[in-house]
Amino acid sequence: MRYSNLYVPTLKEAPADAEVISHKLLIRAGMIRKLTSGIYTYLPMGLRSLNKVATIVREEMNRAGAQEISMPMVQPGDLWEETGRWQFYGKELLRIKDRHGRDYCLGPTHEEVVTDLVRGEVNSYKQLPINLYQVQSKFRDEIRPRFGLMRGREFVMKDAYSFDADDAGAEASYKAMYAAYSAIFERLGLTFRPVEADSGSIGGSFSHEFMVLAETGEDTIAVCSACEYAANLEKAEVTGEVKPCLDEGPMMVEVATPETHTVEEVAKFLNVHKMQVIKTLLFDADGEAVAALVRGDRELNDIKFKNALDCAELTMASPEQVQEWTGAPVGFAGPVGLKVSRILADNEIKGATDFVVGANKADTHLRHLNLARDVEAEVQYADLRVITEDDPCPRCGGQLTMPKGIEVGHVFKLGTKYSEAMDAKFLDQNGKEQLMIMGCYGIGVSRVVASCIEQNHDENGIVFPPPVAPFEAIVLCLDPKKEEILGKAEEIYNIIEASGADTLLDDRIERPGVKFKDADLVGYPIQIVVGGKGVKNGIVECKDRRTGEKIELGLDNFERDFVAWRRDVWCGWGLTDGDADLDSCR
Amino acid sequence: MRYSNLYVPTLKEAPADAEVISHKLLIRAGMIRKLTSGIYTYLPMGLRSLNKVATIVREEMNRAGAQEISMPMVQPGDLWEETGRWQFYGKELLRIKDRHGRDYCLGPTHEEVVTDLVRGEVNSYKQLPINLYQVQSKFRDEIRPRFGLMRGREFVMKDAYSFDADDAGAEASYKAMYAAYSAIFERLGLTFRPVEADSGSIGGSFSHEFMVLAETGEDTIAVCSACEYAANLEKAEVTGEVKPCLDEGPMMVEVATPETHTVEEVAKFLNVHKMQVIKTLLFDADGEAVAALVRGDRELNDIKFKNALDCAELTMASPEQVQEWTGAPVGFAGPVGLKVSRILADNEIKGATDFVVGANKADTHLRHLNLARDVEAEVQYADLRVITEDDPCPRCGGQLTMPKGIEVGHVFKLGTKYSEAMDAKFLDQNGKEQLMIMGCYGIGVSRVVASCIEQNHDENGIVFPPPVAPFEAIVLCLDPKKEEILGKAEEIYNIIEASGADTLLDDRIERPGVKFKDADLVGYPIQIVVGGKGVKNGIVECKDRRTGEKIELGLDNFERDFVAWRRDVWCGWGLTDGDADLDSCR
Repeated sequence: MRYSNLYVPTLKEAPADAEVISHKLLIRAGMIRKLTSGIYTYLPMGLRSLNKVATIVREEMNRAGAQEISMPMVQPGDLWEETGRWQFYGKELLRIKDRHGRDYCLGPTHEEVVTDLVRGEVNSYKQLPINLYQVQSKFRDEIRPRFGLMRGREFVMKDAYSFDADDAGAEASYKAMYAAYSAIFERLGLTFRPVEADSGSIGGSFSHEFMVLAETGEDTIAVCSACEYAANLEKAEVTGEVKPCLDEGPMMVEVATPETHTVEEVAKFLNVHKMQVIKTLLFDADGEAVAALVRGDRELNDIKFKNALDCAELTMASPEQVQEWTGAPVGFAGPVGLKVSRILADNEIKGATDFVVGANKADTHLRHLNLARDVEAEVQYADLRVITEDDPCPRCGGQLTMPKGIEVGHVFKLGTKYSEAMDAKFLDQNGKEQLMIMGCYGIGVSRVVASCIEQNHDENGIVFPPPVAPFEAIVLCLDPKKEEILGKAEEIYNIIEASGADTLLDDRIERPGVKFKDADLVGYPIQIVVGGKGVKNGIVECKDRRTGEKIELGLDNFERDFVAWRRDVWCGWGLTDGDADLDSCR
Repeated sequence: MRYSNLYVPTLKEAPADAEVISHKLLIRAGMIRKLTSGIYTYLPMGLRSLNKVATIVREEMNRAGAQEISMPMVQPGDLWEETGRWQFYGKELLRIKDRHGRDYCLGPTHEEVVTDLVRGEVNSYKQLPINLYQVQSKFRDEIRPRFGLMRGREFVMKDAYSFDADDAGAEASYKAMYAAYSAIFERLGLTFRPVEADSGSIGGSFSHEFMVLAETGEDTIAVCSACEYAANLEKAEVTGEVKPCLDEGPMMVEVATPETHTVEEVAKFLNVHKMQVIKTLLFDADGEAVAALVRGDRELNDIKFKNALDCAELTMASPEQVQEWTGAPVGFAGPVGLKVSRILADNEIKGATDFVVGANKADTHLRHLNLARDVEAEVQYADLRVITEDDPCPRCGGQLTMPKGIEVGHVFKLGTKYSEAMDAKFLDQNGKEQLMIMGCYGIGVSRVVASCIEQNHDENGIVFPPPVAPFEAIVLCLDPKKEEILGKAEEIYNIIEASGADTLLDDRIERPGVKFKDADLVGYPIQIVVGGKGVKNGIVECKDRRTGEKIELGLDNFERDFVAWRRDVWCGWGLTDGDADLDSCR
């Protein structure tokens, strides 16, 4: 492809609303343009990268036995009524009425549609297992879309759905997808981690997220440095042993704590450590008043708390509710005499003595609380807090690290959540009706492109892994007005294309500096400079964008030497082009 | 691909709601499934055919210098306000409000979005011309979706938009697209006709439709059997000379015509030919009362009438409006004393004498009307009627035929309609601001698949042209339980795949009859039967689905003979695989 025929509107400046590096660079590299909040057009270069990711995703999905279909983006509301998600999904679901006033939504996910399809087609165990996937634009009406392709409203997703006859089959399907996802992110040249995850509002039994590691990631993950353990922070269990106090401590007393609302203020006022204070957090759980107790220096993990309560909707108590349940304004809640249905406490404070808690009275706290002795209501203990780097690995007790990550894939074992709600049954070998066991598996294809950039960039622009770059190689013809130089550049271009690297020939009538800058900005992994001086001396300069290393290759043996050097560039990424053995790199 | 790993749910019966053959066969062949009215899921086989069409479309668009992008499906309403189409487009435009109450629509077409993109990027003539296209799901909320993929609400379309600096450039862009479209439909193996067309509500200067010829087509086209002329019926001009009457005829008289409402009834009652009656048709044109006069045996062409009036909205007069404008109930309107703003009459009745018209009085007509003599109001003459097979070709006077067709593509020269409304300007060579000249070009990708079937089918099922079939070839292994037979079938399969034909191996444990029926139903162009008897005798049977012809090829020279026979199958379709010269077929 010739640059002069290609629309690549690079920019010197990023737009003011671009907050993260991938957003800035995608705009500056002429890959995407914003239409409106959270909605982008893919320009030719952006679409090329998107398609490269999608192609690798498709290849690995097909290899794993999944079959590609294409479901509609407009979905009838009545299917969502069947699963209860028409109510439950909230405002992220973009609802539409057609000209006849019937309810539809713009698909944010396709469990309902695919289950409706399969229940109409499959009636015997002989037709199972089946795994159907699609690559499609989806829509989620995010309350605050931001970060370009990282959290858009319209985005490209690969979603797959497996149907099995029994649990063993469903686990095999899950494992096949887990393996396919690992293969996909490896082939893309990304540094990633599969981590244990909570299955969230989509429901189901167990799940893993695939995280691209990047400092700018919105998620934090807990990774063990001794064993294989890795989990999303929401999920990571705290398992450290808690030693109960041996004495029951002094008698509880009420103390005045005027104008101390936060744990910090209370601890400072009473001259105790934050870990000697217990936070009492109040929530409305499906209409019931509930309280969570955690140590003052810890953070409540909402997901764990919600799972422990087994409730559908959990919201922070309003100031009015706090007043009603505690008899005091916000800031003085405590477990003694609290009017709530359930009190759950974090495992860490089981057997705690000599703690400070709110007294359910304005400007007042209780000192020397002994939980078992002083709280009349039943207190249940559970793992409720967010894990920290000081906690041991829940598997092996090893040291944890907590890198940042970007979620790019998610695999769920759904079980019978949807097949039960939608009556998706089949006849087993004994002629007995059974519910299908489902799994669902998503990859944020457009987010993968952005996370490539979050992980791989420098001050000059994007550093694309070869499989994701819009073109793997660019030939910079420094003097395209001279027929001889352009002819030589075309020759080089043809050799590189023939070697299997899709290549762009920069034949623009522009200064060399502009060409170098644009090449680094878009981040073509391989950059070949064809200039007058080099051609005279029989050499071209080859630059590896990742390392910045330049070598000179002679024109005489260019084909042979280029193939070897290209292989080195791929090896540097921990990749091979095609099925060559990676060991051969070393 | 092995059939046993593929989801192809063929059916014996078509669903009750399937009216046209492509709809019936797409369902029966397991290619699509209905989700809801006008909205379908593409199953693996349907998606394969869709992708094959899309690939050929992309190849020819790229070859013609167009560049692929991907625009959002959700579009902001304010862009549509700029062009006035937010009001004008009507109920086919599916309107949405997001969580913040802002207006959006689901894109039925992308003129607004692409013009917004280009006006933000292009500011110099040096950046022109540019032609951007995409392949995407679109949504039009059809009042009565029907005929499966022929007239769905959600459908796949390729839409391209060209921007040029001047009229000459715009015409060159138009011609390049016209040529690309011809190449696309030729490569797909379709019998088609490009025809002159009205540019309709999208506006613009001139346009062509690409029509796939099929008896079941909804459109009629006028084709000259002597010259190249072909046009959509809406567009085809009537140019035959009209000889005025020599005498002015008898004096006009009022006659009672009790209970005669239609032209037929009036003609019969008065014992005249229908061609001696003039129909007076009343309309509301942008709020003004207008009348159209055409001969009783002719049909008014609404499009021509609307174009002659140059109005935005044209609707039939209500019974109340008829009463108000004529002073009589529906059925007795006539040009004498009619209270309307404008009267337009078809060229054919210019100088007409001795006609019957309504008297604007219940149960009454006028006889012996002389239009020029008896009508006081000004009457404008124009070409208003639908052409017939008896009319001469408007170009050469030759004989017309009127085959049926299915519109699969449409090219428009838009001119400055959108660039003016949206202020899409650039600086020309003299530094002067100019409006961009636009064109737009659509192909109904999913409709192409359906029209392939409308044009090519028989009582056994689909007869796919090789480039559109989900698989070009199928190897029917009649006895897959026998290792030797399955092994031989796999060998044959590998040879066929290597020859360039994507192939399906029917390895199902099913009766031969089921396999033969399914193969004919889905319509694989090449069917190879590998059975016990054949293998024993060293032969396989090869069937050309189009002709039904079977030949036996020896296993010894299978590779060589198959390649030659496959070439014959393609030649029979008027096609070659790849760039081989079609002349070599003959």
